[in-house]
Amino acid sequence: MPAYKAPLRDMRFLMNEVFDYPTHYANLPGGEEATPDLVDAILDECAKYCEEVLAPINQSGDEEGCHFADGVVTTPKGFKDAYDQYVAGGWQGLNYPAEYGGQGLPMSMGLLKAEMMGTANWSFTMYPGLSLGCMNTIMLHGDAEQKATYMPPLVEGRWLGTMCLTEPQCGTDLGQVKTKAEAQADGSYKLYGTKIFISAGDHDLSENIVHIVLARLPDAPKGTRGISLFIVPKYNVNADGSLGERNPVNVGSIEHKMGIRASATCVLNFDGANAYLIGPANKGLECMFTFMNTARIGTAVQGVCHAEQSFQGALPYAKDRRSMRALSGKKDTDHAADSLIHHGDVRRMLLTQKAVAEGGRAMVYFASQLADNMSVGIINGDIETYDYWDDKLGFYTPILKGVLTELGLEAANLGMQVFGGHGYIKEHGMEQYARDARIATLYEGTTGIQALDLLGRKVLLGSRGKVVREFTAEIAKFCRDNVANKAMRPFVWELTKIVTQWNYLTVRIMLQARKDRDLVGTAANDFLMYSGYAMLAYFWAKMAAVAFDKLENGGNDEPAFYEAKIQTAEFYFDRLLPRAKGHADSMLKPTASVMQMKPEHFNFG
Amino acid sequence: MPAYKAPLRDMRFLMNEVFDYPTHYANLPGGEEATPDLVDAILDECAKYCEEVLAPINQSGDEEGCHFADGVVTTPKGFKDAYDQYVAGGWQGLNYPAEYGGQGLPMSMGLLKAEMMGTANWSFTMYPGLSLGCMNTIMLHGDAEQKATYMPPLVEGRWLGTMCLTEPQCGTDLGQVKTKAEAQADGSYKLYGTKIFISAGDHDLSENIVHIVLARLPDAPKGTRGISLFIVPKYNVNADGSLGERNPVNVGSIEHKMGIRASATCVLNFDGANAYLIGPANKGLECMFTFMNTARIGTAVQGVCHAEQSFQGALPYAKDRRSMRALSGKKDTDHAADSLIHHGDVRRMLLTQKAVAEGGRAMVYFASQLADNMSVGIINGDIETYDYWDDKLGFYTPILKGVLTELGLEAANLGMQVFGGHGYIKEHGMEQYARDARIATLYEGTTGIQALDLLGRKVLLGSRGKVVREFTAEIAKFCRDNVANKAMRPFVWELTKIVTQWNYLTVRIMLQARKDRDLVGTAANDFLMYSGYAMLAYFWAKMAAVAFDKLENGGNDEPAFYEAKIQTAEFYFDRLLPRAKGHADSMLKPTASVMQMKPEHFNFG
Repeated sequence: MPAYKAPLRDMRFLMNEVFDYPTHYANLPGGEEATPDLVDAILDECAKYCEEVLAPINQSGDEEGCHFADGVVTTPKGFKDAYDQYVAGGWQGLNYPAEYGGQGLPMSMGLLKAEMMGTANWSFTMYPGLSLGCMNTIMLHGDAEQKATYMPPLVEGRWLGTMCLTEPQCGTDLGQVKTKAEAQADGSYKLYGTKIFISAGDHDLSENIVHIVLARLPDAPKGTRGISLFIVPKYNVNADGSLGERNPVNVGSIEHKMGIRASATCVLNFDGANAYLIGPANKGLECMFTFMNTARIGTAVQGVCHAEQSFQGALPYAKDRRSMRALSGKKDTDHAADSLIHHGDVRRMLLTQKAVAEGGRAMVYFASQLADNMSVGIINGDIETYDYWDDKLGFYTPILKGVLTELGLEAANLGMQVFGGHGYIKEHGMEQYARDARIATLYEGTTGIQALDLLGRKVLLGSRGKVVREFTAEIAKFCRDNVANKAMRPFVWELTKIVTQWNYLTVRIMLQARKDRDLVGTAANDFLMYSGYAMLAYFWAKMAAVAFDKLENGGNDEPAFYEAKIQTAEFYFDRLLPRAKGHADSMLKPTASVMQMKPEHFNFG
Repeated sequence: MPAYKAPLRDMRFLMNEVFDYPTHYANLPGGEEATPDLVDAILDECAKYCEEVLAPINQSGDEEGCHFADGVVTTPKGFKDAYDQYVAGGWQGLNYPAEYGGQGLPMSMGLLKAEMMGTANWSFTMYPGLSLGCMNTIMLHGDAEQKATYMPPLVEGRWLGTMCLTEPQCGTDLGQVKTKAEAQADGSYKLYGTKIFISAGDHDLSENIVHIVLARLPDAPKGTRGISLFIVPKYNVNADGSLGERNPVNVGSIEHKMGIRASATCVLNFDGANAYLIGPANKGLECMFTFMNTARIGTAVQGVCHAEQSFQGALPYAKDRRSMRALSGKKDTDHAADSLIHHGDVRRMLLTQKAVAEGGRAMVYFASQLADNMSVGIINGDIETYDYWDDKLGFYTPILKGVLTELGLEAANLGMQVFGGHGYIKEHGMEQYARDARIATLYEGTTGIQALDLLGRKVLLGSRGKVVREFTAEIAKFCRDNVANKAMRPFVWELTKIVTQWNYLTVRIMLQARKDRDLVGTAANDFLMYSGYAMLAYFWAKMAAVAFDKLENGGNDEPAFYEAKIQTAEFYFDRLLPRAKGHADSMLKPTASVMQMKPEHFNFG
């Protein structure tokens, strides 16, 4: 089984050298506590926990999977112990307010933590991860009593939470939700209905589980405007906070999945469960979507995780395993064959993984700063601030979620490919990464949904192209700032072309879509992928600029790190960015080539 | 579980309307027996067997997997019975000479059969499939006695065979093979060594298993020039053909794999097993590679299989499942939401699967005719004929194997994606296709090996670009023939660009590689994928031309079939062919961006 080593050097490069987190935190209301020393200590401690506790139970967790018997879900061996350590370490409350028992650090610290935990063991990370959505919902939409009741044990991690959205007949299209709430005399409700795909829906890790459930009030309007949010605890909570009787939220079954097998995915039957309305009636979807951007960026992180994880597995193998001779002549003359890493196509695969992991990480670290700013708006109840930053974040979210999960899956598969036939064998652990990575393009909105969100909602309807103009203006400024630097010229040249092309494509689609609405659907995936490659190019150029500066202006004792950054940037621009050309070309093609075939003509017997 | 329906209409379109198999068979020495009526009857019968016997045990076979206990491998429930029916139907001998009990039909019939069987149940198909390599080796390189002993029961299917190449320390690089042969007084040998990844290495389907094993004779030269081929039966064979004692070929274990779980992948220990030299001493690799082209095309078929299989699973779901409204307005007004098939991005996924399955099938049907011609050379012992056609086939082999398995994997993953989160759940069967498809880019030479074979051996060293010039000349002729047809113009125009660009890229690489050998390694994957997209474009245009002709010149009662062909061709040219641009761009980039990074700088702690 490949070992996990947290990429601390790279994380600190991004925090301290590229995105200047120290200044960001110093200026962030409530961020002052995140001093460089504290941040450093937390990263080290988190890395240790991930490397020593979570990574060793990743493969065994996949092998064993979760158990379901007599209505009870049991997690694999070692998960409960690892979770106890997680709670004892105070990790769940890292970025939650001190008033609920948290450490009150900025939201970004939670995303940094999530990457390390997720790389070490994504299945495990799902349990505390899903609880974030629950905590965020209660923190933002709960009344004082609900906050007082639920937040402290959730922030402590003594309780965990879930989000119950999907039903058998609908996932994306939540307007079809059927689960019903019946009013009780005391102002509470009883819920009836079935929810599926509930991650961490049941388990043996925490004392209680707090479900946030989408359901319909009696006489609610049809469709999306008749959906409300409810709190449904697994165990009823007494007035003093102690646990009462079991609430009838019954586990129907757990799913048998391709991967993330140690994460329990439950069918939950609400058989008249006690439920408490949270937030305004019939506004459940709006409330739920408050934190959608951060939830989706949390899933984008998964792409980075599996790219990093698979890279860390493939690299030592590529150095150890010997096969054939390098094309340019023998490299390891004292052996019968050269290491795989001397072969161009193996390098292509490794460098693709590296470019995705490090480039994706840069995108996440950038977006995390926006999330910090947005989060301040929430904590201070300052809706204007929240809206401003949530809007900003909204442009990045589908790109990060859509593209990083797709590329993370590709990277995980490349890691298997480096192993040749051995990659297909379970014991090496590489195929698990590919199976685990596969879910990321499906849940939290499929790639297709991200693509429509980006092109339809964010770019066209939401801003008439303004979000693209703004981001490309930032790229253009970067180009002006760096054009005098000869070393940066190749990057600047490519980025300049992107500035023009991205806006051109946006305008063309905007104009054509007026006449042909189908264009949004037929161009969406290409536009998403194009945007992802363009954005990655910008962040790779940004990292290269920092690296050139460090090499030139000295003061560092590890030029190799910066040289490797520049070399990876060159690889990205030469070998991955060209894919954007194909997407640019395809997206403007007539909608007919996608839309004209009649449904009954897709197949002939 | 999705049902399988053999795509007979499409197969007959290719055989009768595109590639004129009736004439091909009529002109093929020994092919006269394959009359249209007989071929038709065989296709129908094979389809029935695949649909009714093999497909129903595909998912259960995956769930159950193979068993290994007390040194014995047992296949999943139903496999033995299905195999008995396979033998009773005479399917194994379909394209083997009548003198050994076969039906003596052309080799292409075997590939057509393999596609249907493989789509219905790839794991099952591996058992008789691996035996083909064994039969081919004995037929071509065995002496009269070996042929008489082994061919009849192998052709009958009463015995099955394997190919034992890989060892723990080497797969691709067979020069590192260590298995040793010790000479015995009677002229036979005893083999000592361990082979891994032996598909169908042991099982309960056939009475005996005949292993073809790569090993070294005593005092053999080092490396690839010291490897010989041996026949090693599981049970020794008495002079009268009856089975004797168990030969010490011991199953060490079976592998636990990501997919094709019903196919037994064995570690075989040769503990002094009786072995018989086949073919000339120390020429084992050359002998083994005689049939490499057909073996690799047999694996290319797997890409078609999983694309077809996943498409057949995704299509009914896309019609049944309802989510959201179509962008251009409500389609199913009597329902709360429209079927997925009305959404552009879902169509993109379905049409990609369809374009890969049908386009890939066309490539296989084309290559199968070359294989037929090559095979005539073998059967008649006419080396000149064999060499000529094997050379021809050699250009297509890496493209078909490399590109169709990569695209087959993509298509299988798209089928999951159409299902959204449900695609990740085992019971729907879609994720199995993605897991099963994953092996195809790894075995029988990884994609990287196909890429090097194409660019390094076939294009540069083997022909100095001639193979590309010849194939593009064929495309150019097609363009001239069709340029007068207005409907064909868009295809002709794109193909004309490909003719120029493919040759340009080849020449550029040829010139640059003289100075920089690494270019072959850094450009290989892009060149392979480019060639694949270019070749698919040609075959799609060819199919479109036939379809236009049928529509125009009438005589057919199903215009919808031909319209759908043209629409799929348009989809291919508009949406998939543009990817070739990215590959064209990337392959000529400096080798430094791949080769410059020092192995120790790929990662920093």
